[in-house]
Amino acid sequence: MAVLLQVDFPYSGPWGEDMAQAMRGLAESIAQEPGLLWKIWTENRDASEAGGIYLFADRASAEAYLQMHRARLLGFGVPQVNVKLFDVNPALSAIDRAPLGG
Amino acid sequence: MAVLLQVDFPYSGPWGEDMAQAMRGLAESIAQEPGLLWKIWTENRDASEAGGIYLFADRASAEAYLQMHRARLLGFGVPQVNVKLFDVNPALSAIDRAPLGG
Repeated sequence: MAVLLQVDFPYSGPWGEDMAQAMRGLAESIAQEPGLLWKIWTENRDASEAGGIYLFADRASAEAYLQMHRARLLGFGVPQVNVKLFDVNPALSAIDRAPLGG
Repeated sequence: MAVLLQVDFPYSGPWGEDMAQAMRGLAESIAQEPGLLWKIWTENRDASEAGGIYLFADRASAEAYLQMHRARLLGFGVPQVNVKLFDVNPALSAIDRAPLGG
């Protein structure tokens, strides 16, 4: 069953198109991660935060990615990484047009 | 531009199919909310948390929903609601197969 990973952290830019240019290679590498269905890249200039919402095919893939990605973010100098893993409720999500893919 | 709303809160069940049965009417009403593209329903039995990841067509819709939904959750007896609003980075999300719809 699909597992949702919610990640956010303090971030001071670049934003928008500059962020996209700076992190294009990272996004391309994330697209190859085992078990990843998709990632939405998130950013909030006003709150100085960024992050991602990921859908993985299973919990093992999500946990393996999370361990690697948390270490990578700390290596980038991110001071703190907020993380939550959730199961998806497929029946309720289907009523609300959720894109669970698979 | 699409806006992502991330909500989670302490929750002690019902879970899974029982949750789907109990909240079907709520999910159907959420499907009608102005500006909602989709919602993924999330749950974590081990952490006793639940929540949702929403994609809205614009910030005004997301903020209006959030104000209503936070009050509704508090009315349900939820003691605390964790909320973050983010812009979506469309270029990076597209590389990672994100379902931004629209």
